[in-house]
Amino acid sequence: MMDQDTVERIRAVTGEERCSTSRARTYAYGFDASIYRGQADMVVQPLSTEEVSAILAIANERRVPVVPRGGGTGLCGSAVPVKGGIVMDMGRMDRIERISVNDLLCVVQPGVVYDELNRALAPHGFFFPPSPGSGEACQIGGMVALNASGMRAVKYGATRDYVLGMTFVKADGEVVRAGTGTLKDSSGYQLARLMVASEGTLGVITEVTLKVSPRPKASAMALAAFDGPERAGEFVAALIAEPLIPSSLELMDSVSIDAVNRALGGPLPDCNALCMVEVDGEPEIVVKELRTVEEVARRSGAVSVESTVDRGQMASWSSSRQAVMTSLSSLRPGSSSVSLADDMVLPISRIPDAVKAYQEIAERHGVTVATYGHAADGNLHTKMLIDTRDEEQWKAAERTVREIFQATLALGGSVSGEHGVGMSKAPDFIIERSSAIPTMVAIKKAMDPNNILNPGKLQQWESPGIIGDLRYPCDPPRD
Amino acid sequence: MMDQDTVERIRAVTGEERCSTSRARTYAYGFDASIYRGQADMVVQPLSTEEVSAILAIANERRVPVVPRGGGTGLCGSAVPVKGGIVMDMGRMDRIERISVNDLLCVVQPGVVYDELNRALAPHGFFFPPSPGSGEACQIGGMVALNASGMRAVKYGATRDYVLGMTFVKADGEVVRAGTGTLKDSSGYQLARLMVASEGTLGVITEVTLKVSPRPKASAMALAAFDGPERAGEFVAALIAEPLIPSSLELMDSVSIDAVNRALGGPLPDCNALCMVEVDGEPEIVVKELRTVEEVARRSGAVSVESTVDRGQMASWSSSRQAVMTSLSSLRPGSSSVSLADDMVLPISRIPDAVKAYQEIAERHGVTVATYGHAADGNLHTKMLIDTRDEEQWKAAERTVREIFQATLALGGSVSGEHGVGMSKAPDFIIERSSAIPTMVAIKKAMDPNNILNPGKLQQWESPGIIGDLRYPCDPPRD
Repeated sequence: MMDQDTVERIRAVTGEERCSTSRARTYAYGFDASIYRGQADMVVQPLSTEEVSAILAIANERRVPVVPRGGGTGLCGSAVPVKGGIVMDMGRMDRIERISVNDLLCVVQPGVVYDELNRALAPHGFFFPPSPGSGEACQIGGMVALNASGMRAVKYGATRDYVLGMTFVKADGEVVRAGTGTLKDSSGYQLARLMVASEGTLGVITEVTLKVSPRPKASAMALAAFDGPERAGEFVAALIAEPLIPSSLELMDSVSIDAVNRALGGPLPDCNALCMVEVDGEPEIVVKELRTVEEVARRSGAVSVESTVDRGQMASWSSSRQAVMTSLSSLRPGSSSVSLADDMVLPISRIPDAVKAYQEIAERHGVTVATYGHAADGNLHTKMLIDTRDEEQWKAAERTVREIFQATLALGGSVSGEHGVGMSKAPDFIIERSSAIPTMVAIKKAMDPNNILNPGKLQQWESPGIIGDLRYPCDPPRD
Repeated sequence: MMDQDTVERIRAVTGEERCSTSRARTYAYGFDASIYRGQADMVVQPLSTEEVSAILAIANERRVPVVPRGGGTGLCGSAVPVKGGIVMDMGRMDRIERISVNDLLCVVQPGVVYDELNRALAPHGFFFPPSPGSGEACQIGGMVALNASGMRAVKYGATRDYVLGMTFVKADGEVVRAGTGTLKDSSGYQLARLMVASEGTLGVITEVTLKVSPRPKASAMALAAFDGPERAGEFVAALIAEPLIPSSLELMDSVSIDAVNRALGGPLPDCNALCMVEVDGEPEIVVKELRTVEEVARRSGAVSVESTVDRGQMASWSSSRQAVMTSLSSLRPGSSSVSLADDMVLPISRIPDAVKAYQEIAERHGVTVATYGHAADGNLHTKMLIDTRDEEQWKAAERTVREIFQATLALGGSVSGEHGVGMSKAPDFIIERSSAIPTMVAIKKAMDPNNILNPGKLQQWESPGIIGDLRYPCDPPRD
């Protein structure tokens, strides 16, 4: 609990309206889109770097945890105030400060919503390519804090590749200008890139300079059905070896396809593995590449191949893919879809092995697991269908998760491609990155010696067990 | 000087052949391509991560400086052993360990030469896009250590955008595996990206995993002559606003054009500002884009526009551009071209202002300055023509450099886009990055508490004056 004096000092910074300790408000900030729950003591909504700095200086002096929060769409608990303290909602710092397409960049506050930014860039013929599934709600600050990406990363890269500069505030309130307002930078440590994926544990981002790219003029999609993940994997490998880099290539396994078809009345071909390929660019190239995609799919043994350049059809296919997560919950009454092993990333060529391994693990533990994701950049998501009121099912899910992560590491992969570590992946992250953890700890201590910034995230290394007892079966998820 | 015991312990790691304290060998390792000179006590050529680790552990215990060295092509003194100690020549670790185009990556040792890597990738239809001018000699480890890039960065990004993972050894010999062998990564602090541009001050890189891109199938070039940098700048802005992102867009000012024409017998149009534009990609798009480049150049007031798809002609134009540095020395007998303010980077739209400002500063100080560079990504190089035996000319050059850096910062730019800070830019770097320096120092101390790794680089903050007295007029440059 925060003492009254600290509360008053912070309230003096923001005023009454943007600072609350009411139970109703702080309760709502105890969640993000993960299965975790915390309880904040205070919610603040700063409007400026100066306010962020003043609040952090007070919090640091009083050793009060501060959890920076974007759109709250994260799936791993990165924004959950697991140790109480202050949730710093960055959503009011939502100005697009500058769009300079002549300089191939824009400058935004962290609370700008992803889709808003792209709506603002569109009239200039440009866009910010990383494309998180939560684009209509997630904020740029959160995207940077988690190195978000999405479907287009194979062609366009992840958020880390677009961050040119930023302003951030360190735990003690010190304001740092990192990186540049230029495309290139070879001047000292790339602190702006270090901040990417640091999950709010090293500083609070208050402004970001992002590179922008020309919007592709056209796009087209193909839907290739296969009799299993092996063939789908061969298709992906053959496509890349062409070389043809699609703008996205989404893979859905049989559970995902089945869930979507049941929920939405059968929009997808009934098969064991489906690849949804998008190509984009100049119109004549898009047509040429679409033909190549079809040819390569047939050559790789596709059961069926459809393709389209119609925007409506493409939107419909895309929404079928987006519907996996929600569709899964409707497969079995009383059960719902949860994000646990949500974001594995593998060498692209190991995708078929991973899908098979996950299916085998799920079967062994009697858990329904849907596997799908961005196959051309090696990023697989799984969702598990469990009755969240049943402790046995939670336990089976936990064993499944552990083995999925183990299988991922054995295949040369990593526990998170784009969602972050947060709380859900901390134990596996620590195994995977064992040689890097001491350096990460040293950097954390150098930048936040009192560990006030988002404590309990990534950092199981500092306080073993603190997260552990919150895990599966954890506090019941929201329904 | 290193004591004999330390020498013997290190020799026991590498054997006689790859460890030398002979004056002849250590002298040769006192230079890189900059104006600086140091004197190493020992040169070692490790063959493995284990050897690097063993050597660093000894050096750290004995507080002996260690300067990692790649191809020695750096222009800012980053590889000069300014405080003596050990130069660690990474050139023997030159294996391409794995090319996995199916995974869109390759794994290389740091001593692999840039051109060698691209020769190895070519048969697969892939390449590593950053294109340093010193590509035939520079090594991947050095490129990572300096975030090298070159002409193609506007379209393809810099080295930092391609580093997926690496192994590096910390000052105390601890081996760290950073990043992943996958395209995406959202698991904790991005140490691999932090190592990029750290100039050997945080660790010694012993293996790098790099993303690779499909080789463009075709390319074409246009040469647009303008009556001054303003018009050339308008052309660059108009091209990007199309939007058309060229694979490179090289700008040469009147001094550069004149120098090349005199040295090589007039291959370039006689004008005040020249833009050499390259477009690449699918053949039909290249032709279309080339036409757009020509149109936009004419619309922007080009005095003349030529274009070609002929490989020989393109190679000839490219080599004219590459010849600026050497040509300048032949402009005036007794004078030679030196790299001082060699690598400013600006918001693209400020390029014309920068060229004009540099010309005005040069005129005021009576120094001949050639300005040229990668205009579409905002990166300008200057070379100065001085009689290096004349102290007055060094002093005028120094004043010119200071003012060029000041003008760059005033225009929103940065002192280094792709060459690094090294020694030459340390004072200006510290001014530019004043708010970030305390964090950089904290990270340096956390990772190399005894400051054995490349001391005297970037780090004027730690020992003010230590570099200062080595600067202009410095020890006479090699001729």
